[in-house]
Amino acid sequence: MTVRVGVIGVGMIGQDHIRRLTQVLSGSAVVAVTDVDPARARTVADGLAGARVHATGQELIRDDDLDAVMVTSWGPTHEEFVLAAIEAGKPVFCEKPLATTQEACRRILDAEMAFGRRLVMVGFMRRYDAAYRAVKTAVDGGSIGAPLLMHCAHRNPAVPPYGFTTHMAITDSAIHEIDLVRWMFDEEIVATNVLTARRSSKAAEGLHDPLIVLLEMAGGILVDVELSLNIGYGYDIRGEVVGESGTAALAETTEAVVKAEGLVSGRAPADWRERFIRAYDVELQEWLDAVAAGGSTGPSAWDGYAAAVVSDSCIEALRTGSRTTVSLPERPDFYVKS
Amino acid sequence: MTVRVGVIGVGMIGQDHIRRLTQVLSGSAVVAVTDVDPARARTVADGLAGARVHATGQELIRDDDLDAVMVTSWGPTHEEFVLAAIEAGKPVFCEKPLATTQEACRRILDAEMAFGRRLVMVGFMRRYDAAYRAVKTAVDGGSIGAPLLMHCAHRNPAVPPYGFTTHMAITDSAIHEIDLVRWMFDEEIVATNVLTARRSSKAAEGLHDPLIVLLEMAGGILVDVELSLNIGYGYDIRGEVVGESGTAALAETTEAVVKAEGLVSGRAPADWRERFIRAYDVELQEWLDAVAAGGSTGPSAWDGYAAAVVSDSCIEALRTGSRTTVSLPERPDFYVKS
Amino acid sequence: MTVRVGVIGVGMIGQDHIRRLTQVLSGSAVVAVTDVDPARARTVADGLAGARVHATGQELIRDDDLDAVMVTSWGPTHEEFVLAAIEAGKPVFCEKPLATTQEACRRILDAEMAFGRRLVMVGFMRRYDAAYRAVKTAVDGGSIGAPLLMHCAHRNPAVPPYGFTTHMAITDSAIHEIDLVRWMFDEEIVATNVLTARRSSKAAEGLHDPLIVLLEMAGGILVDVELSLNIGYGYDIRGEVVGESGTAALAETTEAVVKAEGLVSGRAPADWRERFIRAYDVELQEWLDAVAAGGSTGPSAWDGYAAAVVSDSCIEALRTGSRTTVSLPERPDFYVKS
Amino acid sequence: MTVRVGVIGVGMIGQDHIRRLTQVLSGSAVVAVTDVDPARARTVADGLAGARVHATGQELIRDDDLDAVMVTSWGPTHEEFVLAAIEAGKPVFCEKPLATTQEACRRILDAEMAFGRRLVMVGFMRRYDAAYRAVKTAVDGGSIGAPLLMHCAHRNPAVPPYGFTTHMAITDSAIHEIDLVRWMFDEEIVATNVLTARRSSKAAEGLHDPLIVLLEMAGGILVDVELSLNIGYGYDIRGEVVGESGTAALAETTEAVVKAEGLVSGRAPADWRERFIRAYDVELQEWLDAVAAGGSTGPSAWDGYAAAVVSDSCIEALRTGSRTTVSLPERPDFYVKS
Repeated sequence: MTVRVGVIGVGMIGQDHIRRLTQVLSGSAVVAVTDVDPARARTVADGLAGARVHATGQELIRDDDLDAVMVTSWGPTHEEFVLAAIEAGKPVFCEKPLATTQEACRRILDAEMAFGRRLVMVGFMRRYDAAYRAVKTAVDGGSIGAPLLMHCAHRNPAVPPYGFTTHMAITDSAIHEIDLVRWMFDEEIVATNVLTARRSSKAAEGLHDPLIVLLEMAGGILVDVELSLNIGYGYDIRGEVVGESGTAALAETTEAVVKAEGLVSGRAPADWRERFIRAYDVELQEWLDAVAAGGSTGPSAWDGYAAAVVSDSCIEALRTGSRTTVSLPERPDFYVKS
Repeated sequence: MTVRVGVIGVGMIGQDHIRRLTQVLSGSAVVAVTDVDPARARTVADGLAGARVHATGQELIRDDDLDAVMVTSWGPTHEEFVLAAIEAGKPVFCEKPLATTQEACRRILDAEMAFGRRLVMVGFMRRYDAAYRAVKTAVDGGSIGAPLLMHCAHRNPAVPPYGFTTHMAITDSAIHEIDLVRWMFDEEIVATNVLTARRSSKAAEGLHDPLIVLLEMAGGILVDVELSLNIGYGYDIRGEVVGESGTAALAETTEAVVKAEGLVSGRAPADWRERFIRAYDVELQEWLDAVAAGGSTGPSAWDGYAAAVVSDSCIEALRTGSRTTVSLPERPDFYVKS
Repeated sequence: MTVRVGVIGVGMIGQDHIRRLTQVLSGSAVVAVTDVDPARARTVADGLAGARVHATGQELIRDDDLDAVMVTSWGPTHEEFVLAAIEAGKPVFCEKPLATTQEACRRILDAEMAFGRRLVMVGFMRRYDAAYRAVKTAVDGGSIGAPLLMHCAHRNPAVPPYGFTTHMAITDSAIHEIDLVRWMFDEEIVATNVLTARRSSKAAEGLHDPLIVLLEMAGGILVDVELSLNIGYGYDIRGEVVGESGTAALAETTEAVVKAEGLVSGRAPADWRERFIRAYDVELQEWLDAVAAGGSTGPSAWDGYAAAVVSDSCIEALRTGSRTTVSLPERPDFYVKS
Repeated sequence: MTVRVGVIGVGMIGQDHIRRLTQVLSGSAVVAVTDVDPARARTVADGLAGARVHATGQELIRDDDLDAVMVTSWGPTHEEFVLAAIEAGKPVFCEKPLATTQEACRRILDAEMAFGRRLVMVGFMRRYDAAYRAVKTAVDGGSIGAPLLMHCAHRNPAVPPYGFTTHMAITDSAIHEIDLVRWMFDEEIVATNVLTARRSSKAAEGLHDPLIVLLEMAGGILVDVELSLNIGYGYDIRGEVVGESGTAALAETTEAVVKAEGLVSGRAPADWRERFIRAYDVELQEWLDAVAAGGSTGPSAWDGYAAAVVSDSCIEALRTGSRTTVSLPERPDFYVKS
């Protein structure tokens, strides 16, 4: 079966996913697109044999000749399109965030539960990264004993000089670690804190960079996340789980070791696309396979909601400068893995 | 365009490539299969919606409703099927070896040149490995100066206890490095030698293991290749190019670093499938893309022929115990990259 | 000149330093020893040609035929012996801690200032470790930009099952990082905090293990220190300075890489002696050289005092569960490096 | 006991060893020096309290007030001074080579056997390197199975532009690996060969650079040694032993990992002094300890002789371009380790 996908939002990430669906992965066709910029939608569609252009996301979702929806539009529009996809009973892949407020995420949860079957997958791609999976395999395999701590670092070469605020360091950057540790340890986060350090002279006004985000898991595991958003040297994602009798960490990603000019060196990834290109591939292929099989997979609406709640807790911690409890309701049975 | 592929030979490697074409890669459908074991062909076809089973490879090649042929049958049958595909004017991907003798390879060259357009791609997948490509990028980029030497190691955890002969160490194992260095340096190999060392007690009768194969490139670069075929600890492929002012080497492939029980460790790949899984994906996707575009790509029949000639030279060197000149005719213009 | 050294306390560390002075380093002779256990002092002296045994540390210090004193006795006795050495005008190397309370350290400071010349060196050996020095060289050289954060981990395979308390995790273990970061950044620590995580089942009663100690430097650099005291796999000291444009970290200390049984591995150091054996050598040689030259070197009484004050702050943070300001007076000119 | 050492030849290496004896190591005094350049001898002696200057090496050796002799003069003079030391019954440490011809080495062997007790230690310092020792420990411990191959690389940033000939690549550079593998495997070398590759444009006239030296051990182990003498990027010594079930290799020597400007990098050692500084320390301390104890240790005159014989074999192989048998007589019982 070929999964006929409609894509809402064909900016950078939307176009990259279309490339994946049409040139890299198996079992899909992009049959419809829409965008807030109709000309851009037209241009993208012209590169896709037989793809239709819809005036709006709502119209695209109502298109009878598509099997699944991909939401890669601007964050504030996610709620509307995900809700419409649920209403239409169509599987929907939504890039993170699921929605920009926890209340909106909650509405999506409620709608999906009311519909009665999981339709939503949220694009937390790190769960699909081979290195994180190797760490999780080591942790779950018991070779390091019960996990007690995790050290993470999330380093961007740079963020945009205008408009990238300290809040966005949480909602756009730390959000990945928030989801990741929930997946790694299969536990919720119960409290957060955010520590500030000496500010980088490379950080633009309105952004405190770097930050240390602390996440406490339900079972007591303590996670620290370094966020360095203008570190220049490359895009570097580090993670080390510390257990009772050992540790498991992401290895460096270097593919070639060059010895030249006094150094033994490997390249640091230039950006998130380079670092996680395969994780995106695996993520979308698993989604396509699940859709084709009539099932669901991956990070659920609950995961999107929990990330939003924890994210809000971090922002509150940032505001108050103190440890903040996460107020997450109990996970509905609907979202418990069987 | 969906490339309709027919597969001749559905043993282990054939089935793995079918999995790739149908579940991993973009733009193809497996529409026909055949095998020396008709029941196996039937079983495989049953897993592929609408795939036809042909009684013979020749019949499959004549099937009008397929665009390209994949030859993954037993080596001695490759010549026949590749020649038939050329005669039928169909693009053909042939797993290595192109044919089992250099004379047979020569007949394929002649047929393809007579046909007038490149149709044949040989499955030397290392050219598609990200780590080798990173090394080549470093070498071509000049950061290590003009290349002078290359050290390679090709280590298998084990080879079959029966039937894997010293000749096969050349024709099945070293053949990969033979092609690789021709690609890495864009030069032919002009002489070979094979050195024997203390024999591993794990080597079965009839196999001298390990070997050191020496390859001299036209421009003077000297390559040494360690072949260790029963090394137990894993499947490990090493390569380091030594230049005038530096070196570039394949990095270790570890994805997670585990600290436990007194060791800081990473996993060695278990087998060639694990090590080169992505290279196979990239290789076949590039083939599909070229076929869909009506062009050709990848290792050519000339590369298959040259590998066979060098391989014969190594076997002669093994027999005589001395340096052996490679008698390769000049490369026809037809096979010169434009 | 041969520096004639008298050693007060010849337990494990005292004997190890005697081995260094007599069998490894240049320019010293151990001419006198004493110990709370006179028989042990006798035994040790018997292994040293011509060494005298003194009944007490005070008596040893008064011995006219020695040039310098090494204090490697039980912590609570340090103050008494260091003060006596100052009174006698003899250079004294005191293993950490300088004294067990900040008040006692203060008395030593005052005595040394009253004497008018630096005589005291405290045994913070990490400053002499080649890897830490390489990190400091990178940081000071500017290649990573202004330092903003430092991540440390201090992992012991095990601590004694009885008597090793959570306070000792600060005073015996974290004390090394407390001194180290003051040296690394040439700044005082102005605030501390201690975070607890899920407790290791391997920690004995009375010990919270692991801990995260947070140290804030005067210039805003934030340091996090993982203390894992029963991690089993080895003795592992990690450190990474994060700057505005890069990071500098201690490399792994592996000397040989072994590939066997599916793993690519190196050994983790078994204990602190193995990890820092060279740092101790360098530390004591620099001390001997300074004594021979009539000067002083290394961590001063001020460093010992500052470590005690910060250590007290950490213990207060542990008690209150909140960030604690460090009340360190201004550094006297006497202790400012010229 | 303080070992009173006389040093013959106070050029660069002689002065460096004097620094070791007087400022780094334990248990020695440099009491006499001599040099072909009397003024230089005078200058060096002036830096050593009470050191005597002798007009000749022979005179120094006859000095009754010294216990041991260090020969760090020009290679062609080694034989004379080592023979004189044997005649005087004094322990002698001789920098490599033991002598410049195998015949001269043979005369030393005969003199030492006639004297009846081992007095000579040859300065092959790699046996004292911690990384090589860790590899040997792994090999001897059986974790990689019986050794079958060894890959070595010996890379110099540069050799002098005038006067460093291809022969010297053997006698000055490969000589280290020749001794090393004899020690590593506790076997003699029975045959050699030398392969040339494309010549580095950085090699001066009269030097073929790089070379591959092949060494066959008595038990069949095959060793390949890359000699790259003008590789620019640093001084890099590699070694990997390949066994039946695994490999053991020298790790990289990096002490700090720096992430900056797109790279994850460590420093390559600048020269042999930096790489082997500790090996020299350990080597000389073990010599001093043995001399003080009235015994002998380390590479013997036999090892110096065997290295010379193998070295001659390599030069013959270089001349003839073919595999050359090593004609080493049986090892006298005098030199067999008990």
